[in-house]
Amino acid sequence: MAIKLASFSVDGQNTWGVVTDGGVINLGAREGGSVLQLLNQGLSWDALAELQDKNTPDLSLEEVNLSPPVVCGSKIICIGVNYANRNAEYKDNTPDPEWPSLFMRAQESFTGSGQALWRPPESEQLDYEGEIALVIGRRGHRIPQDQAMDYVAGYTLMNEGTIRDWVRHAKFNVTQGKNFSRIGSIGPYMVSPESVGDFRNLSLETHVNGEMRQSDTTANLMFPFDYLISYLSIFYTLQPGDIISTGTPNGAGARFDPPKYLVPGDVVEVRCPSIGVLANTVEDDPSTCTDLTDQLRSNRQG
Amino acid sequence: MAIKLASFSVDGQNTWGVVTDGGVINLGAREGGSVLQLLNQGLSWDALAELQDKNTPDLSLEEVNLSPPVVCGSKIICIGVNYANRNAEYKDNTPDPEWPSLFMRAQESFTGSGQALWRPPESEQLDYEGEIALVIGRRGHRIPQDQAMDYVAGYTLMNEGTIRDWVRHAKFNVTQGKNFSRIGSIGPYMVSPESVGDFRNLSLETHVNGEMRQSDTTANLMFPFDYLISYLSIFYTLQPGDIISTGTPNGAGARFDPPKYLVPGDVVEVRCPSIGVLANTVEDDPSTCTDLTDQLRSNRQG
Repeated sequence: MAIKLASFSVDGQNTWGVVTDGGVINLGAREGGSVLQLLNQGLSWDALAELQDKNTPDLSLEEVNLSPPVVCGSKIICIGVNYANRNAEYKDNTPDPEWPSLFMRAQESFTGSGQALWRPPESEQLDYEGEIALVIGRRGHRIPQDQAMDYVAGYTLMNEGTIRDWVRHAKFNVTQGKNFSRIGSIGPYMVSPESVGDFRNLSLETHVNGEMRQSDTTANLMFPFDYLISYLSIFYTLQPGDIISTGTPNGAGARFDPPKYLVPGDVVEVRCPSIGVLANTVEDDPSTCTDLTDQLRSNRQG
Repeated sequence: MAIKLASFSVDGQNTWGVVTDGGVINLGAREGGSVLQLLNQGLSWDALAELQDKNTPDLSLEEVNLSPPVVCGSKIICIGVNYANRNAEYKDNTPDPEWPSLFMRAQESFTGSGQALWRPPESEQLDYEGEIALVIGRRGHRIPQDQAMDYVAGYTLMNEGTIRDWVRHAKFNVTQGKNFSRIGSIGPYMVSPESVGDFRNLSLETHVNGEMRQSDTTANLMFPFDYLISYLSIFYTLQPGDIISTGTPNGAGARFDPPKYLVPGDVVEVRCPSIGVLANTVEDDPSTCTDLTDQLRSNRQG
């Protein structure tokens, strides 16, 4: 049975453990450390299986708040258009790209599974993007494609949540619309490459309130996982705990006419059978906010 | 006299301290911690001045390897076109932008002052971009512009080194060309906002082998420092140790005809009188490399 490695908080304490059918085993309380430390020491799924076998659950899944499975890793790298149908969806008659498009996201733009995504007061264009994400387990630089999968410690899912009107605040770079606090999620767990099976043919779906909006398979990727790792490693020095999210199928909310953006109360699920279900509700950002957008505009004109 | 707060390694140990005319005081050896921890606890320049006064230097500046003044902060955010002359330099007749352009860089793309920048084997287009960088000292989200400077713990300089032909690997996002390992630098030190003076009129120059290539003043910024902090804080949750680099004047190597890219042996200096001089040599990346670019191209065609 696949080991489900999770980071979570319970009674305000950040910890980690494994999620079993019978409940959650709080391994952080027994062993100390964090998932990032496990990765830095060289994650052993066999050792985790032994820990799971010799301990009994402490907590029900309802008692814990899941975080992204790795917290405070060095970088979260997201791939743009990658599913072949998606380039066609842009309808700009450009040929398939020669190289992948990519950008980075801040940790604070993500929450864990079961938590609410935040719709910010600055925009009503909160959108979902279901993705499969790789967790890097070894430091690597300039990794040949045929060795790339040796650097993957495990798999998880990402809702690469996006504020559509803010990705075009500038001529280049989608940074703004990808980095609002808590507009995306990572999880629910991290599972082993062995348990996931053939990475070249994984099915991926996104459902909103039970309606299927995205569905594709990694067989259609223009840049498959091993290619991405090799390509990224030409420039980045990959580190244990780095996350690479591999692109989203067509069918994001912005692609519908009229667009189907997320609103408070919606439930978004990203599903991959051998990885799990990343599920989030949506709520308005509960922070007290001033409308800084208008203020900044008038400050510049003043 | 301005306190110069530095991170550095000595005999392979990472530590921090202050740089004085008489040499370097290794405060990490006395007090433990790191600059990031100081920032998380609330950096006090007065407390640093006391530590400087009551201790004598342990090391000469030549004995230490300077790192970026903050290591392993949560994010490094870089602003694109910001000096007013620079938008004109692009000669595409676009009006001044309504909002700033920005992207993130990985820590590993930077070294400290006095170290060699690395020209990667994949490109001969290593270019400099001298910039003034802000170090965030307090957690903040949606910060009004008139309170923004309270969030700055100090100033440093950045050479936002870039691989020109790789910033256009994709239609959007300059990520690739900004993230090669050790193509840029941050430093030499971090100095207090008080010692820097009026942030609205700081002069900034970049020299290559003694020749001035960039020269401007922050009086010409389209988006001044306080605006940037306020704008970024709409989406990002700013954290102690975050770096915001505020854009580069015109005169990068790519703007000359023919372009003046950096080659091994070059010396690049970024200068701001009240912050310091960030100086780096250039050498070819010493790693053993395979040409993965060609390999990836042929893998896709094969």
